[in-house]
Amino acid sequence: MHGPDGIGKGKEKGDAGLRVHGGRIDLAASLYPSAPTPWIDLSTGINPVPWPVRPIPLARYQRLPLAREIAEMTEAAAACYGLPGNAVMLPVPGSEMAIRLLPRMIGLGHVGILAPTYGSHAQAWRDAGAEVRELTALPDPDRDDCKTLIVVNPNNPDGRMIARADLVAFALPWTATGRRLVIDEAFADLRPESSMLALPELPEGTTVLRSLGKFFGLAGLRVGFVAATEPDATAWRQLLGDWPVSGPACEIATAALRDINWIAATRARLASDRRRLDHLLGKAGLRLLGGTDLFRLFEAAGDTDLLDHFARAGILVRGFAGASRQYRFGLPADEAAWQRFETACARLK
Amino acid sequence: MHGPDGIGKGKEKGDAGLRVHGGRIDLAASLYPSAPTPWIDLSTGINPVPWPVRPIPLARYQRLPLAREIAEMTEAAAACYGLPGNAVMLPVPGSEMAIRLLPRMIGLGHVGILAPTYGSHAQAWRDAGAEVRELTALPDPDRDDCKTLIVVNPNNPDGRMIARADLVAFALPWTATGRRLVIDEAFADLRPESSMLALPELPEGTTVLRSLGKFFGLAGLRVGFVAATEPDATAWRQLLGDWPVSGPACEIATAALRDINWIAATRARLASDRRRLDHLLGKAGLRLLGGTDLFRLFEAAGDTDLLDHFARAGILVRGFAGASRQYRFGLPADEAAWQRFETACARLK
Repeated sequence: MHGPDGIGKGKEKGDAGLRVHGGRIDLAASLYPSAPTPWIDLSTGINPVPWPVRPIPLARYQRLPLAREIAEMTEAAAACYGLPGNAVMLPVPGSEMAIRLLPRMIGLGHVGILAPTYGSHAQAWRDAGAEVRELTALPDPDRDDCKTLIVVNPNNPDGRMIARADLVAFALPWTATGRRLVIDEAFADLRPESSMLALPELPEGTTVLRSLGKFFGLAGLRVGFVAATEPDATAWRQLLGDWPVSGPACEIATAALRDINWIAATRARLASDRRRLDHLLGKAGLRLLGGTDLFRLFEAAGDTDLLDHFARAGILVRGFAGASRQYRFGLPADEAAWQRFETACARLK
Repeated sequence: MHGPDGIGKGKEKGDAGLRVHGGRIDLAASLYPSAPTPWIDLSTGINPVPWPVRPIPLARYQRLPLAREIAEMTEAAAACYGLPGNAVMLPVPGSEMAIRLLPRMIGLGHVGILAPTYGSHAQAWRDAGAEVRELTALPDPDRDDCKTLIVVNPNNPDGRMIARADLVAFALPWTATGRRLVIDEAFADLRPESSMLALPELPEGTTVLRSLGKFFGLAGLRVGFVAATEPDATAWRQLLGDWPVSGPACEIATAALRDINWIAATRARLASDRRRLDHLLGKAGLRLLGGTDLFRLFEAAGDTDLLDHFARAGILVRGFAGASRQYRFGLPADEAAWQRFETACARLK
């Protein structure tokens, strides 16, 4: 039975989709039609104050991106992220698609995934027919029989960080027998010194994924990067072709990656906003489990359904199918959103 | 040895790239630095008068495309192209990437390609390790041992059309044994009644590719569509994920596919411009080999290098590595371009 305002529908059966991926504002709005608008989306780890996109010349929509333009964007990415001397940087139409292509690039066989983490990795390998093992720590390189290991670093949703020195020490014996290591650094912009791409040399057989969607707040652009050693880099280049991203996306990504002043100011702002979020949710009785400066994972004290609580206030947070008391919170975009969020937090007590 | 203006360099060794893909204006400009500008690009089959893109709300760059928005774009494509009752339409980030993904979707084995045709098909299969057979006609379904057959229809660069009834009659016995048929309809917008997508039912195991780059003139957008029967459609959906195209591209593609007045007027304009092109090149002594209303394939009467001739006038046409007297011409964009093209044609005699 559904409540008269349709909210019951969301509670009873429809909100499972809100526990699989963030960003489903349209689903939330249909489940909670009486919620105040505009919806405040805290369900993603996307920077809500994006790099300021300027209007794009219409010609960029019309003609194919030039080889020179793709090269300039790739060089801007290498300058921003770093690039080990033995690695090649390649643009992809969103790091999500790179995640889905990985099983077809690397080939099947058992895959280990440091868990819990962003669900698309396991989904992509299962869809391709691989056997997925969820691991809680780096495996013993002498004993584990996985062919590929996937590490999201820093991790989503709990912010777990494996120190780069530990990853390198692991990677050398792991990849020496032909096994592959994939490091998803979608949230590494916040701590560039921790990135594998800041190394002078990438362990052979290691693939690093980067995203323009999170830190730069440009998820709609669908631009990411893969850094890989040969021969993997050549295989990626063949698969992705000469025009892996749209012309407007190429122009915007190049300018954003070069904007070192915006990047520095944004790191500082996100750190400050993150402290404000921690303070509010701590006051409301939630326990911080971890996170990065773009999102925080909290545990509720009791059994209150916080996804439902915040959705009734027009605020979408991220729940998890397998951990009903855990919630991930992104950052409000502006003072009006902070005020609505603060009011909803105060109602928790 | 290079000529003093750098033209010799292009003639002797650098222009091979201009015979592999169209659209390489940056390469042409570096090979012919003394050519008049702006360069006129007739080297592609892209409509030079694109669908008029309007400014995009910046939010579309920031947030992920919503499921509803992707669905609306896909429905607009189905309404524009048609969609057989047993087929599923799926957006891809450019039909070029779909071409490169095909070997990984379908699996390897001998692939037959109706040749000569757009080079990316053979390249993608060879890169993936398949054995490619170039065929000059549809094979005998009872005898040929290819696992997959690829037909570009209408064909690029010669405009060859296989009647849809013949394709259907071929497809039924061909795919009945589990073999696959891929129809690349990148140029089918010009003759919608010829498309496999206008059928009530798609032969099982058939995959149809469409492109927004050519007829709509939006190559920079990187949007295409794959139409396939199950279980292929599910495999494509898994590979492409929830956000296969950028937010701005989704908005633009939806509006373009719905603009039936622009589509009808553009078909008429392209037919008229194509007749003008035929007339000019016929007067200049070239022999028409075939084409569509977006490009024409001509054969030069003698051994004059027409790629070089037009490049010296700042006009890039398409040459072919394997057919030195054949040239493909796209349509000039405006009257100024037509005038420069007419002058360059007149100098041929």
